[in-house]
Amino acid sequence: MDQSELEEKARENFETKKSISAEENSYYEAKIETMGLKTLERLIQFHPNPSKLMKKGVTFAHQDLETVVEAIGRNKPWSVICGLNPSGPLHLGHKMIFDELLWLQQQGAEVYIPITNDESYVVGKSPTLADSRRIAYDSVIPSIIAMGFDSKKTHIYVMSDYPEIYNVAMDLSKHTNLNRIFGVFGFGKDEVGENPGTLFYRGAVQLAQILLPQFEEFGGPQATLINVGVDQYPYLLLSRDVARKKGFVPPSAIFTKFLPGLSGTGKMTSSRIKSSIFLTDSLKDAEKKLKKAYTGGSILADFQRENGGVFDICPIYNLRANHFEPEYDLKDRCSSGDLLCGYCKKDAITEVLQYLSEHQAKLEDAKSRIDEYLLKTPIRSIL
Amino acid sequence: MDQSELEEKARENFETKKSISAEENSYYEAKIETMGLKTLERLIQFHPNPSKLMKKGVTFAHQDLETVVEAIGRNKPWSVICGLNPSGPLHLGHKMIFDELLWLQQQGAEVYIPITNDESYVVGKSPTLADSRRIAYDSVIPSIIAMGFDSKKTHIYVMSDYPEIYNVAMDLSKHTNLNRIFGVFGFGKDEVGENPGTLFYRGAVQLAQILLPQFEEFGGPQATLINVGVDQYPYLLLSRDVARKKGFVPPSAIFTKFLPGLSGTGKMTSSRIKSSIFLTDSLKDAEKKLKKAYTGGSILADFQRENGGVFDICPIYNLRANHFEPEYDLKDRCSSGDLLCGYCKKDAITEVLQYLSEHQAKLEDAKSRIDEYLLKTPIRSIL
Repeated sequence: MDQSELEEKARENFETKKSISAEENSYYEAKIETMGLKTLERLIQFHPNPSKLMKKGVTFAHQDLETVVEAIGRNKPWSVICGLNPSGPLHLGHKMIFDELLWLQQQGAEVYIPITNDESYVVGKSPTLADSRRIAYDSVIPSIIAMGFDSKKTHIYVMSDYPEIYNVAMDLSKHTNLNRIFGVFGFGKDEVGENPGTLFYRGAVQLAQILLPQFEEFGGPQATLINVGVDQYPYLLLSRDVARKKGFVPPSAIFTKFLPGLSGTGKMTSSRIKSSIFLTDSLKDAEKKLKKAYTGGSILADFQRENGGVFDICPIYNLRANHFEPEYDLKDRCSSGDLLCGYCKKDAITEVLQYLSEHQAKLEDAKSRIDEYLLKTPIRSIL
Repeated sequence: MDQSELEEKARENFETKKSISAEENSYYEAKIETMGLKTLERLIQFHPNPSKLMKKGVTFAHQDLETVVEAIGRNKPWSVICGLNPSGPLHLGHKMIFDELLWLQQQGAEVYIPITNDESYVVGKSPTLADSRRIAYDSVIPSIIAMGFDSKKTHIYVMSDYPEIYNVAMDLSKHTNLNRIFGVFGFGKDEVGENPGTLFYRGAVQLAQILLPQFEEFGGPQATLINVGVDQYPYLLLSRDVARKKGFVPPSAIFTKFLPGLSGTGKMTSSRIKSSIFLTDSLKDAEKKLKKAYTGGSILADFQRENGGVFDICPIYNLRANHFEPEYDLKDRCSSGDLLCGYCKKDAITEVLQYLSEHQAKLEDAKSRIDEYLLKTPIRSIL
């Protein structure tokens, strides 16, 4: 390939990346439109100290956040619920969500974190209930604790060790029906070939997690917030239906964009090990993964110097911008062509390795404090 | 109406009752055919002491009872599982089933009795989980204990107080799927308008009850038997599927006919108070209900003297024959026209009232012994 062919290829590549970026933005804009969400513009404008992810547009939309704002204004208790699947250790995509949760806790929220090993198992992400349960205690909960949550306002439970959620789920299940569930999840007649556990999980257990803080044992009806990806919208709809029928406050939601995986396609997720930086990765592994990561840069340095990088689809840019605060203006230096990917990755590696080693140093102590965080309250008000 | 008209009417009435009787018998014969069951003839022939209900043909069919017989022959442990809905106190229909269970316990079975207040609630037989839970402890469990079960071999649990069944149900749910469940219960596309709790109950929780004795905590894979009505056949199918996938022994079943309600239509059931004799009924109420009961007799005494009564559809006959052992041959005296309904009812009232007063005298003591019977074993083998 001669120089002009290379330049032609670089141009094509640049245009492709630009169009992916435009597609992605219009995807989220369309979601706001079709799901009837609101942007966070007003909150960012009026809040004395909005979260980092809100300012960056990563947490990009909400539904009914007014209910939470009002509770805060009136000094009433409110809660955030954020469950997660313990099919593997936490990765930086999780950390982003938990950073947002930490900010919400600083605004006064009680934080409920169901660790859903039941879901991991029934949807096939874990071969047994026991496997994902072990991961929960060995690494997921210690990592959450190490992030700095306040044990007095944080309530973690592993589903299979808090089976009374079953009674709550059965209690709530009467207030919805299969047609509604098939409707919100878009199942067709031929797509019901899933197991009854998945259906019950989706149609009742997840509602139980979301509405749990509104049961008598936790203070009764109150404003609640879930912090989720747009794929979780059906749960918001179902839980708002059922909340109304129970005399609860319909939950509010904020929606966060996913952190892109290192391969450049899809989100960072436990099932794609090479594409994700886990909080328990060895420094060597993390460095290797980052070095191999896809970027928004060009195959030709000169081309990139002239045209800049396509930062918003770049996993390295997103990872650095969302997690670390580089001393220089990353967006500006990338788009101006001033910062090339090699240098940027080098700095990313320094930042990630420093974070991982600091985080990992806290895990042993965090493990010894798990019990302070566990929710054990029996649910008797429905029996 | 003159005498000949009355006689004509009596004849018509008699023929109707005869044809209902024939219909009922062919209903059960057809069930044996379509469900591929076996009759109990061989067992009755070779067993030194078959149960009263087997001899009478009330327990009329089985599936795979050979597996249980073999376990008994080899002196291996085996279990019977018999759940019930605590939507009201026990009635004589329940007593019939529990008489059979007592006989099975005498043959060596460990007896598991899940009291399914979760089912009562999700299928709409109880307004809350709490209502049916209260009935369970106030009257259902005391009545079971008063019938004479051995506390060392009887394991009773109220579903909402044994929520770890949730983990068992989730564990098993992965081994079946919604298509199979819709198939065995015959749901059509438009009939899925039930709640996710009902579906999970039917497709997973009931399996958990049936297969529980085969979990490590209770001795691992073993012969198990359910004693049910033919309407419960889908659960047998599902549990046999899932048992195979878990490496368990596919459960066996014996099928018992229902006790007819006093009104002459349908079975005795908690939801039809006037048609059922509850074990907690006052003697006065029981007497009233029996006096008003439908019978297999004639509107004309002379006609009945000549033609006899249609005993097999008569609730009074069934009640007496299945529960009490009159000194005279009831079937013979009824069909010969020798025993008229008035006299028969009088004896029935004496028998029922004596039984109720004896049973009720034992309830206070039984209440004080509930704890000896409750299953509390945590299920850790799957976690």
